[in-house]
Amino acid sequence: MAGNEAKGRVLPPGISSRDFERALRDFAGAIGDEWVVRAEEKLAEYRDPFAFASADPGEFASAAAVKPSSVEEIQAILKIANQYKIPLWTISRGKNLGYGGPAPRVSGSVTLDLGRMNRIIEVSEEFCHAVVEPGVTFFDLYEYIRERKLKVWISVPALGWGSVIGNALDRGIGYTPYGDHSEKICGMEVVLANGDVIRTGMGALSRGKTWQAFKPGYGPSMDGLFMQSNMGVVTKAGVWLMPEPDLFVPCDVRFERESDLEQIVDITARLRREDIIQNTAVLSNAVRLISRRGSRRKWFDGEGVVPRDVVKKALDESGLGAWNLTFAIYGPEKLANARLKIAQNAYAAIPGARLSSRKWDVKAEKPGALTASMGPDSVQAGIPSLVALEVLKYRGEDGGHIGFSPVVAPSGREAVKLANLVGARCHEHGFDYYGGFSFGARHLYSVMMILYDKASEEHKVQAHRLCERLVVEAGQMGFGEYRAHVAYMDLICEQYDFNNHALRRFAETLKDAVDPNGILSPGKQGIWPRAMRPTRKAT
Amino acid sequence: MAGNEAKGRVLPPGISSRDFERALRDFAGAIGDEWVVRAEEKLAEYRDPFAFASADPGEFASAAAVKPSSVEEIQAILKIANQYKIPLWTISRGKNLGYGGPAPRVSGSVTLDLGRMNRIIEVSEEFCHAVVEPGVTFFDLYEYIRERKLKVWISVPALGWGSVIGNALDRGIGYTPYGDHSEKICGMEVVLANGDVIRTGMGALSRGKTWQAFKPGYGPSMDGLFMQSNMGVVTKAGVWLMPEPDLFVPCDVRFERESDLEQIVDITARLRREDIIQNTAVLSNAVRLISRRGSRRKWFDGEGVVPRDVVKKALDESGLGAWNLTFAIYGPEKLANARLKIAQNAYAAIPGARLSSRKWDVKAEKPGALTASMGPDSVQAGIPSLVALEVLKYRGEDGGHIGFSPVVAPSGREAVKLANLVGARCHEHGFDYYGGFSFGARHLYSVMMILYDKASEEHKVQAHRLCERLVVEAGQMGFGEYRAHVAYMDLICEQYDFNNHALRRFAETLKDAVDPNGILSPGKQGIWPRAMRPTRKAT
Repeated sequence: MAGNEAKGRVLPPGISSRDFERALRDFAGAIGDEWVVRAEEKLAEYRDPFAFASADPGEFASAAAVKPSSVEEIQAILKIANQYKIPLWTISRGKNLGYGGPAPRVSGSVTLDLGRMNRIIEVSEEFCHAVVEPGVTFFDLYEYIRERKLKVWISVPALGWGSVIGNALDRGIGYTPYGDHSEKICGMEVVLANGDVIRTGMGALSRGKTWQAFKPGYGPSMDGLFMQSNMGVVTKAGVWLMPEPDLFVPCDVRFERESDLEQIVDITARLRREDIIQNTAVLSNAVRLISRRGSRRKWFDGEGVVPRDVVKKALDESGLGAWNLTFAIYGPEKLANARLKIAQNAYAAIPGARLSSRKWDVKAEKPGALTASMGPDSVQAGIPSLVALEVLKYRGEDGGHIGFSPVVAPSGREAVKLANLVGARCHEHGFDYYGGFSFGARHLYSVMMILYDKASEEHKVQAHRLCERLVVEAGQMGFGEYRAHVAYMDLICEQYDFNNHALRRFAETLKDAVDPNGILSPGKQGIWPRAMRPTRKAT
Repeated sequence: MAGNEAKGRVLPPGISSRDFERALRDFAGAIGDEWVVRAEEKLAEYRDPFAFASADPGEFASAAAVKPSSVEEIQAILKIANQYKIPLWTISRGKNLGYGGPAPRVSGSVTLDLGRMNRIIEVSEEFCHAVVEPGVTFFDLYEYIRERKLKVWISVPALGWGSVIGNALDRGIGYTPYGDHSEKICGMEVVLANGDVIRTGMGALSRGKTWQAFKPGYGPSMDGLFMQSNMGVVTKAGVWLMPEPDLFVPCDVRFERESDLEQIVDITARLRREDIIQNTAVLSNAVRLISRRGSRRKWFDGEGVVPRDVVKKALDESGLGAWNLTFAIYGPEKLANARLKIAQNAYAAIPGARLSSRKWDVKAEKPGALTASMGPDSVQAGIPSLVALEVLKYRGEDGGHIGFSPVVAPSGREAVKLANLVGARCHEHGFDYYGGFSFGARHLYSVMMILYDKASEEHKVQAHRLCERLVVEAGQMGFGEYRAHVAYMDLICEQYDFNNHALRRFAETLKDAVDPNGILSPGKQGIWPRAMRPTRKAT
């Protein structure tokens, strides 16, 4: 949806320049002038950092941003937004790289930036949970725990700069046994569009002590309703933390042949289901492996897809296989040893598979030493970093990426089917197939990044075409995304078509009931308020 | 809410006898006359089998029952109910013993009995899941798996006669590592009040294969909304099953002193959090232990509370301690041994604690042999039974019970606080304190049954008073129930009071949006449709 514009300025849809000025004054009155962002150069920070699909400069652009510091200020903002019918796009830290970052679905939205609400309200070592506000980053929470030497571990995604709550709400994943971040949320505080404040689960019991202990509460559970959602503004959440394990045993398994994929997936899915592998195991293909070594230019200076023999040579030079699996084992020594042995035996069924492991005695090590010496294993220990940004140098000096992330059944056959589709389409559009699979408890996330050179318009156009094609073709084969860039939210939602989109119909019925003016993040994940439904992106 | 009555017949609220006759004819036309239950003696089956709080014979009574065999028939029923504004009370098997059984919250509801929809649609040994309809009982699913010798285990609650789906929707618990039944539901099919059919999660992707693999889906997750809820009629659900373990090692720990409670809870909660104990550990107090031996008359022939010295004697005679903990260990031998060792060491910190364990080689045993020889351990192996009914003989020939089930933080101090309250109030009202705690992953369920003699009106009145008092007093101390008898649904909901009952307000906003005529299970868990809100039970 391209924006309403006046004098080159993006405005909320259907709002006159004059009314918008009034609204901005009201926002300033409510939260202080310095917390209303309207200068264009500052608003640039609220756009997709990858400037993806930006042929239209008005697309996915904010008209302003407001930065409240409290629930009361959010309530005041909501009141004004309801009055003027101005859409707000809620972000926590706005770090959603590959999925549009902070960019709003509807151009001219006012970004509701919760970054200032960054209190760590509680970390309980006894009960292994934290209560945080949306502005708290993984780095913040990690440092807080480290400073106090608390015996709990957090789980972090590949990049540690994002919001603990924001990442969980978008169903981000990390790489410890607590890596299913939305699953580890226990209890929320939510401001509704009408300004009412609810606490979910046991938080509704005002004198209770179980808000972070028992997720469902009494009656219907509401937490799920606020995930990937525009039904409310989450202002606090409980997060379960992992008790510090005795041992941490990161493992790699190197596989020789591309054709090992089916067997690798079947074995790993079984080990996950049987709780032998406890964390989000990550399987990477060749391009993903070599991309960690920086720009592909050191192997290939041409355009288009890196030839197979060059990939093979790069792998050999780096001592890598056609697939590489990483996972880790956590816990008391005897259990860890037993798990390791079972995993070793399981992968020995694949000719040429080589498992290597490191053993860290967590209780014996000084935490600082552990962190520093762990290298790439650190993400599996919940240590936040920004190392994963390196991959952006793979293609072009100034690279971007889009995430294409369908869910796959935990079956080798299904993984092969998806990998074949993605590989073929990547090559047709001139991209290397950077991919693999992350293993959830009962499913795989297909990991696939379209890495492109931001300096090349042709690259951007092709990346966009490739992504659209993949969403639709994978959808036709029964693979649906678990997460979406703002540019594809509608298209992805479109694939979820059972009974003529009955689930979307239901979600939009709820949306209209709880946000009749449609002010909260319209279009998020393809859910639109009544008045804006005609603008849904047609397929 | 007492019923509308005509000629001694219970009618739906606000519906004339004539209109009701018409509606029944319409129901019969839609699903066949033999599936509309109206004879009073047959309707008795839809009442609380414990006839609890039945001073008013019109309370919690159905006006009729309808028994559809398909989604299409449910849709036809909903259409008629919407037309006449007749409330329907949905049950799966109606076995919700201690919580009202099949009895409706609103007298004069028509019971929507899904018992005929009892197809086991799929059991996948490869992916360890089942897809079932609401009429499928634990016995059904267990037999289906056993007959086909599939290497998967189900989890069952204390009584196996109930519905797999119904129990999970009411957040029932079982005693394997998959014992948090609502947590193991993955994907639902739901008929909404307007007849629309949705599939949640990945089920919305009509060509997909991940409906039972990935719970959240894309956009807001809806499954939680249909738990303990009146937002829709669940007609299918995916259920995760446990891969058959190599070893099954049930354990008992006997503790000498009542005052061990705090330490027992702290240790067990930690072992659960650290995943050393994998299943729902159950801690039982003295009365609960002796109640398994049948009527209390063999030790005590008086009225009122069994004296402490008699309890002590009964324990000694039976070789029992003041507290007894049961849990089990599952998995490959080396892991099981390591877990057992850690648990043994942990409980050794409590003077006099004695841990005993049995070891079953599941792969080696013939399943039949395993089942038959396991005795009381069988529930921890997911084998359904009705043995737990024995406890009803404890007080009177024909006993009843009410479950009072608050959630407690995983802390010894909190458990002691609750046990003291419950024990004192039980004794004040002339009941033995039958209780203990079940250990969820991060919380305790306080288990407490008010066991009474159905033949004694005085018992029933006292049981009712005790329960009301406990709900309110525990609520004031911050303990809220996770589940409710129909008679206490409002009172319990009342305790969840944050921000003047904002969560209830929110749930009722959703309710009005998805069921504007308020036909689905009005009052379920204290959530009422707009028109009936004035009848909410005042506190």
